[in-house]
Formats: sequence, C-alpha cells, structure tokens
Amino acid sequence: MTAPVVAVVGGGQLARMMSPAATALGIGLRVLVEHEGTSAAQVVVDTPVGAPAEGVVDLVAGPPQAAVLTFEHEHVPADVLAEVAARGVPVRPSAAALVHAQDKVVMRRRLGELGVPCPRWAELPDAAALDAFLAGCGGEAVVKTARGGYDGKGVRVVRSSDEVADWFAAAADGGPALLAEEKVPFVRELAVLLARRPSGECATWPVVQTVQRDGVCAEVVAPAPGLDPDVERAAVDAALRVAEGVDVTGVLAVEMFELPSGAPARVVVNELAMRPHNSGHWTIDGSVTSQFEQHLRAVLDLPLGATGARAPWTVMANVLGSEHGVLTDALPDVVARDPGAKVHLYGKEVRPGRKLGHVTVYGDDLDDVRERAAVAAAALQGSTATRDVRGAGTTGGADAPGTTGGADAPGE
Amino acid sequence: MTAPVVAVVGGGQLARMMSPAATALGIGLRVLVEHEGTSAAQVVVDTPVGAPAEGVVDLVAGPPQAAVLTFEHEHVPADVLAEVAARGVPVRPSAAALVHAQDKVVMRRRLGELGVPCPRWAELPDAAALDAFLAGCGGEAVVKTARGGYDGKGVRVVRSSDEVADWFAAAADGGPALLAEEKVPFVRELAVLLARRPSGECATWPVVQTVQRDGVCAEVVAPAPGLDPDVERAAVDAALRVAEGVDVTGVLAVEMFELPSGAPARVVVNELAMRPHNSGHWTIDGSVTSQFEQHLRAVLDLPLGATGARAPWTVMANVLGSEHGVLTDALPDVVARDPGAKVHLYGKEVRPGRKLGHVTVYGDDLDDVRERAAVAAAALQGSTATRDVRGAGTTGGADAPGTTGGADAPGE
Repeated sequence: MTAPVVAVVGGGQLARMMSPAATALGIGLRVLVEHEGTSAAQVVVDTPVGAPAEGVVDLVAGPPQAAVLTFEHEHVPADVLAEVAARGVPVRPSAAALVHAQDKVVMRRRLGELGVPCPRWAELPDAAALDAFLAGCGGEAVVKTARGGYDGKGVRVVRSSDEVADWFAAAADGGPALLAEEKVPFVRELAVLLARRPSGECATWPVVQTVQRDGVCAEVVAPAPGLDPDVERAAVDAALRVAEGVDVTGVLAVEMFELPSGAPARVVVNELAMRPHNSGHWTIDGSVTSQFEQHLRAVLDLPLGATGARAPWTVMANVLGSEHGVLTDALPDVVARDPGAKVHLYGKEVRPGRKLGHVTVYGDDLDDVRERAAVAAAALQGSTATRDVRGAGTTGGADAPGTTGGADAPGE
Repeated sequence: MTAPVVAVVGGGQLARMMSPAATALGIGLRVLVEHEGTSAAQVVVDTPVGAPAEGVVDLVAGPPQAAVLTFEHEHVPADVLAEVAARGVPVRPSAAALVHAQDKVVMRRRLGELGVPCPRWAELPDAAALDAFLAGCGGEAVVKTARGGYDGKGVRVVRSSDEVADWFAAAADGGPALLAEEKVPFVRELAVLLARRPSGECATWPVVQTVQRDGVCAEVVAPAPGLDPDVERAAVDAALRVAEGVDVTGVLAVEMFELPSGAPARVVVNELAMRPHNSGHWTIDGSVTSQFEQHLRAVLDLPLGATGARAPWTVMANVLGSEHGVLTDALPDVVARDPGAKVHLYGKEVRPGRKLGHVTVYGDDLDDVRERAAVAAAALQGSTATRDVRGAGTTGGADAPGTTGGADAPGE
C-alpha cells in the first residue's frame, strides 16, 4: 500500500482545506506555495516554494512522482501544463479545460457553442467596440479583463469607454484582452457546484444562493431558498452542459444569475472556476462529502462521494479582514456565544478585505441559521452583523456582478 | 493575531486526527513522534522525533513556547510533566489527573472514594491474594497489570494464579503491580465521552455502545440502541463524577459495563482514557463537534462546542490489519459501493490486528447503517463482514473485558 500523492499548485486557503480531506483518505499532498508560511504551508508537510512557471515540473517529479497535478487557482502557464502532461502525469483539470476558467473570452465563446445561456457579450478589440456595445445595452455594461481577475478585480461597470481607457491602453501594450457583458437585471445569484471524474462520472451538490458584497462573496445559503424547480433544472442543466462540454475533471463551480420569471432563460452563467470554490465551503460541514474531499477523489479518478445536504439549511459566512484586527482574539467569545458554529480560520495575517476564514452554521430554521452565521463572522472580523448581510441577495444589482469570488490572489 | 501552539506527546492516529481540527481553528500543532513517518508525522508539519522522557521539555519550549502540553497516550513519566509544569506551561490533563489513566490501582482506589460503581476488585501483592479473590468470585477473575496495558494486552481471564505466574514474577522484579477484578456478567459495553475545561465546563456526547472483538474495539454505535433512561443517567452521572473527582481537562472516555436490570448498579466503570478515544471516532462525522476539536478547545480553555448527534444513528467500524493486505487498494471499490461511507485511513503499514483506520456511516436506519459500516471496514481490511460483527454486543462476555481499546501502543 503506497499512498498516492496529489500535487497542487497554489498555497492559499483552498489548498489548506484540502489537507483534512487528504488526511482522512490517507492521500499525500505536495503543494507548491508562493512563499513560506502561506495558509497551506502552515498545515501541509510537503510544501516546496516556487512560482508556477519554475516550480511545477519539480513538484510533480518527486520522488515519489505525483499521481496527478491539480490547482487551487487558475494562474498556471499552459506550457508548464503541457510539459507535465508530456511526462505522463495527468493534469486535472486538463489545460484544454482549464483555459475556460483562465480566459473569459474563450469561456464565452465555448459556452455559446454549447448552447449554455449567457449574458449578451462582445469582445472588445478597441474602444469603438465598447461604444457600440453600450449603445445596444441601454448605455451601461460590465467590462472585464479576459484574464487575471478575481474578487471584483478586473471588473468595472461603465457607461463610457473612457472609464476603461487604462485597460485599453494595457491591452494594446500586451495586457489582457477585454470583453463587455450586459448588466444583467438579476433576481439573485446562484451557484452550481459539481465534481467530475475522467470517466465522466459527475455529482452535483444542491444549488446554492450566493450573496456578494463589494464584489466578494459574503454569504452562501444551501440550498437556495424558495428555488423554483424550473430554475433549479435550468441551473443544473447549464452546469452539467459546461462540465461535459469543456471536459472538466475535479470540482467545477458555475456562478449564475437568476433572472425574473418573464425572461427567456431563467439563469445565465456568470463565471466558472475549476477548483474548490468559495460557494462550496458550506460542504465541509453541510454535506456528506466536502468539495475538498470530492476534488481529491475526482482528480485521482476515485468514485465520487454522496453530495446530499446534512441539514435543512446550511449557511456559510465569510470572515473578511477589517481594520479592527481581532480573529483569533475573538474566537473565545464567538464559540462561547454559539457552540454550534463551525469556525474555519485560514492562518492569514489580517488585511482589510482579505478572506481570513469562514463560519458555517446549519439547522432547521433558515432565519436563525443566517443570523448566527452572520453574527459569528462579523465578530471574528471585528464588526457587528448588519442587516444588509442578512437581508442581501434578494434584490441584487447593487454590486458589480462578474466576480469569481473563489480564491484570493495567488499566494494569498 | 498569533495562533497558539498545542504540544502533543505521541505520533499515532489520535494525534493525526487532531490535525484537521487544528487546521480549521487555526491552532498550531507540535507533535512529539516516536520516529519519522508515524501516522501523525505524515500530516503534521512540526513533528520533532524523540522519546517522551527526553523530548517533552524541548517540545514545549519552542520557539514559540507551547500554550499547553497534552497527550495522545498515557505513557509519559511524571517527572517530565512536573518539569513542564514548573516552566509555566499548563499540562492538560495534569499529572495528578493523568495518573488515574496510567495506573489501574490508583484509578480503582479513587473511583471507590468517589462512590463511582466499579466491579469488585483487589490489589494483588502476591499469588495468595489472587487465590483468595478467586475463591470469593466463583473461581474466575480478570487479572490486569496496573500499568502499560492496551488493546487487550495486560489483561487475562484466569481461574488459577498459575496462569499469571509470569506477571507475578515480573512484578517481584520491578514490573507493574497487578490487580484482580470480578468477571462482570455484563449485558453490553457502553462508553461515555466528555470534555472538560480547566474552568470546569463539561460537555458530554451521547452515550454509545462499544463492541469489542479479541480485546480490540470493533464497532461503536451512537447513541447506544434502546438505552434505558435509568442506565443512561447512571452512566453519565458516573462519568461526570469521575471527571470532576479527578479534575480532568481535555477529553475523558469512561468505558463501562451495562449490567442486567436486577443488579444493584446498572453500570460499572471498566476503564478510563484521558485523551481522544476510539469510542469517540464517530464524532468526526457524527457530531456537531468532534472529539479532536473538543480536546483542543478544552486544553486551550476555549469554550466547548455542541455535542449533539447529527443523525439518528452513527456507526463507526474499525479497520484492522489482516494478512490480506489491501486498504488503499480496496478504497475505490469501497467508496464506489457506498458513496456515503466516510473512510478514515491512518497511513500505517498493514500488520495483523493493527488499527489502520475506521469507517463511519450515519443515517435513519440502524440495521442499514451497521451493515454498511461493517461491510466497508471489512472490505478495507481484506475480509468480508461476518454476522458476529453486526450482531455482537448484546450478549457479551466472550471476550476478555478490561481493555482500553483507544490507542495503539505508543509509536504505532
């Protein structure tokens, strides 16, 4: 019996949270971290330091050679992935799949081919293209960089091409290409999380509602409350069509907008992530199989675990850094006040806006569960829970849509 | 914000399973392991190698200095604990508490003083004392070494002092003292698991039924099926009385025999363990707070978590080494057959009888849950589930009672 080693690129909290799942299943982890002391480096034994471009080939070589290479973020050069694959180590998701999570133009093109409902969109070779798009969209649109965005970065809601003049200049200078999307009048945001094996076996978790604030995921409610069965079917169908269409392996998160009942499609796809995702953190405490265990199983081509919810309602609230500091200091009060709250801290230095942890609460009463999660998360981040945390997500539209919300910047 | 470091003596699976809980709460672990590659050393970053007698003082010294010293086994010399305490690092459980889990004579004396129901017992200064005890007990008794026993080692059911002549010789030669206990006509075995903080806050999990085979824990059913409320009350009362009476901190497991309804006491205490225990592995997947998280919270004097069961029935089945080998090789079949089975492997080499992992299954139907756990565990250990696994625990008495069943030998 030799435990397989899964090589992971990226030393943030997503790699960190793979560690308990790997420990349970007796799977080895080898994580390429950006520097010593990252979130994952604190809890994973084997954590070489290096940039993806230089470190990945050694990462998989071992000894022992890794059974598979996977990722906690999408920022890995394609030529590195090709070299790993050429050495006989499977890359999962493959470079051909991963590009759809790396490049929003490639993603939009492919989703169109697959017949997956998307917002109206256009590539933006120049400012004139944006002006034309704005004219056809009521004068307002969402402009995104095709590559490199996360947590609200790389996304702007604009009424004029002047507002992204810097991005056009950067694009002309070899920077990321740009695209425009209509500003969707959504009811709320949903996410479908699934895992897929190389064999094609696929397992979806219940559809969740996600609530963003300032472009960052604040709260996830599982399952999405009051979900119309038609919307649920449309959401799951879209996610499965993406998974099969791009031949993903591992966990795939598909972020969507739910549209009002009169709309031609009930959901449109906003973003993809091919890795464990913030919208799936609830599964650690709330589902039979966590997204982290499932990701390891999927990339190792092991049979997938059951994905049912363990409680009627599970709510995850993110803990974001504030200028107030706290976190570990607040832990005793938080757990004293709520002995059922499941606290997850990522071992990161406090910095305003940074994802430092999350709290999961489950139970029979949705209002109670939402309030408890919000109160605990707020206390850990040194603020108090506000009504807009608990009540958000039913009106939407105030924040810029179009953020991936899953990982921090690489190296966080 | 600086994460506290918990120093742990012992590198087996109990320390290993503290790691996911420490990761979630952002707590540092520093584990003294017996050699490289132990179960815990595979998954904990900071694992100095050494014997307790030599290594513990450096273990807590750091830098940074540990916030507390705790254990995954009881085999730590008292003078080492005294030295650590003298340096200002709390030892939890304290040496004064721990001795009750180290020495069965001390334990029996103290439980008697506390009025906790125990089997009839006697110290055995010599063979004549055993002969006298046998004469008063119907000619059969359980002889135990006061120190050093585990998993059926250090326990013999005898009808004559000749059968432990070697132990008497060893005792005369400076080896462990001996004691005799009546062979209790028990209905089944129960265990009460609790955690206690230095402040005295105490939280108990539901009373479970444990099933031993060949002196080793085979199965735990939570909660104990069909438990008479009087028995439950007696069991919890006994455990709380022990916890407070010996001033334990951290997790305490109290193994008991349930006696027939006509007996003067409905339970008698068999063994104590002051650390996470095999009878509590079900809590990882089956309770709001796992015993490993709770142990860390308790020894750090953090408020305790909720201890309710998450499903009507949770069953844990141990995976023991056999001559057949398997384990990782069997994993794909096991998880394919039962997507809801939670598999925990300890990363240990296969050796007959050795605890290599466990499987937890939960659900609404007890028979189904027991069968699924037994089938999965059997497949992982290369055997097939037999009826005596699933049906055991209602007649009792076939195996020698009196085993601790919690940890393997130190260094396993």
